[in-house]
Amino acid sequence: MTKKLYGGIEAGGTKFVCAIGTEPDDIRSMKHIPTTTPNETIGKVIDFFKENSTIQRLAAVGIASFGPLDLDRDSPHYGHITRTPKPGWSNTNLVGTICNALQIPVTFDTDVNGAALGEHIWGSAQGLDTFIYLTVGTGIGGGGMVNGRLIRGLSHPEMGHIRIPHDRTVDPYPGSCPYHGDCLEGLACGPALEERWGRRAETLPEAHPAWPLEAHYLALGLVSLISILLPERIIMGGGIMKQPHLFPLVRSGVQELLNGYLQVPIILDRIDDYIVAPGLGSQAGVLGAIVLAEQAAGSDAR
Amino acid sequence: MTKKLYGGIEAGGTKFVCAIGTEPDDIRSMKHIPTTTPNETIGKVIDFFKENSTIQRLAAVGIASFGPLDLDRDSPHYGHITRTPKPGWSNTNLVGTICNALQIPVTFDTDVNGAALGEHIWGSAQGLDTFIYLTVGTGIGGGGMVNGRLIRGLSHPEMGHIRIPHDRTVDPYPGSCPYHGDCLEGLACGPALEERWGRRAETLPEAHPAWPLEAHYLALGLVSLISILLPERIIMGGGIMKQPHLFPLVRSGVQELLNGYLQVPIILDRIDDYIVAPGLGSQAGVLGAIVLAEQAAGSDAR
Repeated sequence: MTKKLYGGIEAGGTKFVCAIGTEPDDIRSMKHIPTTTPNETIGKVIDFFKENSTIQRLAAVGIASFGPLDLDRDSPHYGHITRTPKPGWSNTNLVGTICNALQIPVTFDTDVNGAALGEHIWGSAQGLDTFIYLTVGTGIGGGGMVNGRLIRGLSHPEMGHIRIPHDRTVDPYPGSCPYHGDCLEGLACGPALEERWGRRAETLPEAHPAWPLEAHYLALGLVSLISILLPERIIMGGGIMKQPHLFPLVRSGVQELLNGYLQVPIILDRIDDYIVAPGLGSQAGVLGAIVLAEQAAGSDAR
Repeated sequence: MTKKLYGGIEAGGTKFVCAIGTEPDDIRSMKHIPTTTPNETIGKVIDFFKENSTIQRLAAVGIASFGPLDLDRDSPHYGHITRTPKPGWSNTNLVGTICNALQIPVTFDTDVNGAALGEHIWGSAQGLDTFIYLTVGTGIGGGGMVNGRLIRGLSHPEMGHIRIPHDRTVDPYPGSCPYHGDCLEGLACGPALEERWGRRAETLPEAHPAWPLEAHYLALGLVSLISILLPERIIMGGGIMKQPHLFPLVRSGVQELLNGYLQVPIILDRIDDYIVAPGLGSQAGVLGAIVLAEQAAGSDAR
């Protein structure tokens, strides 16, 4: 019997990553499409799937998207990107447009819940029930599972917007968040680094004071996540986390802040195995979208 | 058929509340036992259940306890209160001692998860899948459910220990937490109020500046909970929350801090129905313990 074939879309603010396949070792086609206007970008996405599914029809498409999103299936705006600061993209009917064009089941979730799902099936969160996937890049966002199910309360989480201590005598930068100023995202996302230090984050050398400060803010954020959920693991992805020297600083920052209060061996003694990079690297999102597609197709495999 | 009868224990740092019954309207006996030494207190708890279950045998006992607790059923210390600052109570085998004496199933969870469970079945969280129960009293702690199941990661949450902004020019008080100084609990628990203002919290008049500051810290904590979990409701209990004027201050504080970022109607327009007092009042814990007992007895009722 032929394996069912799925489409996955990681919809990002810079590019849409589209893939067709069944699992990480069986990706039949993949394409990066720049994020320009909704019409142009979604048009090219639809073309990609039409052109690459002539031999075998896709069973479903999953989308892991930047947000905010309307995930409420009872809402008239289900499947939309809602009020986003990304110019031109507010109120974009992502699911409906793709579903109408391809005439197959389409499902969607946040980019971070998508990445969390990919990591759960094939990456660093295999076998875990409660974990967080945090991305640190243009923004800061988090997703993950509690008790084996994706976190979904009233809406999707907005983990970047927690408030953390900010000592303005050490760091007078007021923060970049248009809503909250110096929330976690406002202090520690890529654009905040660039604005604070006057150069792009990836050009800051390893010894630059930017990095201990960045690690401190991220560690404060992780302490909130840990205190509230005690996840079994925290996976950190996104452009900023591609600086490998940042991981050890974040890990030791978390240990210092917790100060031995939580007598949890993996945090006390094996924190390298607790705060980790995505096992699927930068493909966590698009592979997670393929898992979403499987779920949309009603597969019982997961 | 006679309804099964359960025992519930809310084990607190000041008193143990013991009850026998089946539901809120059917509590057959209840007793408050002061928390002195483990031997004396647990001895009296056992006596209460022995004396009051002569006519009908209890099917099980549930305990909702102050912590920290070892909730890992595979651990040799399962059922213990572990390293607590409460003098004499570290390494107390609560579950084992009571189970041995009564020879019936005994289960336990944190006081806040117990209260959350009680609120879920009979109180302010009925019908909700994702909600938080936060207690603000001698300490600050939180429990709750995500996707219909109690939050349990590596261990129970320690929600009081998240870090929040603390402006020392406004509030020079350094915080009361022996581990973290000015974490949420360190800034906003009852003893912190008493130490900061030189008098017990319940004696501070409604117009005292203590209350807007307290509400600000609590609102900062709730913003972290909301950003991470987007719960459907937050229930706030504990001694400090018995000041009814505190609720409106906390609610408006949360709205101001979120600043319209989350387009969630219940937070924007109906926050009185979002941040609420426990429906079961001060009995949430002991009634939750009865729910735990039902679960221990293997009842399928819940």
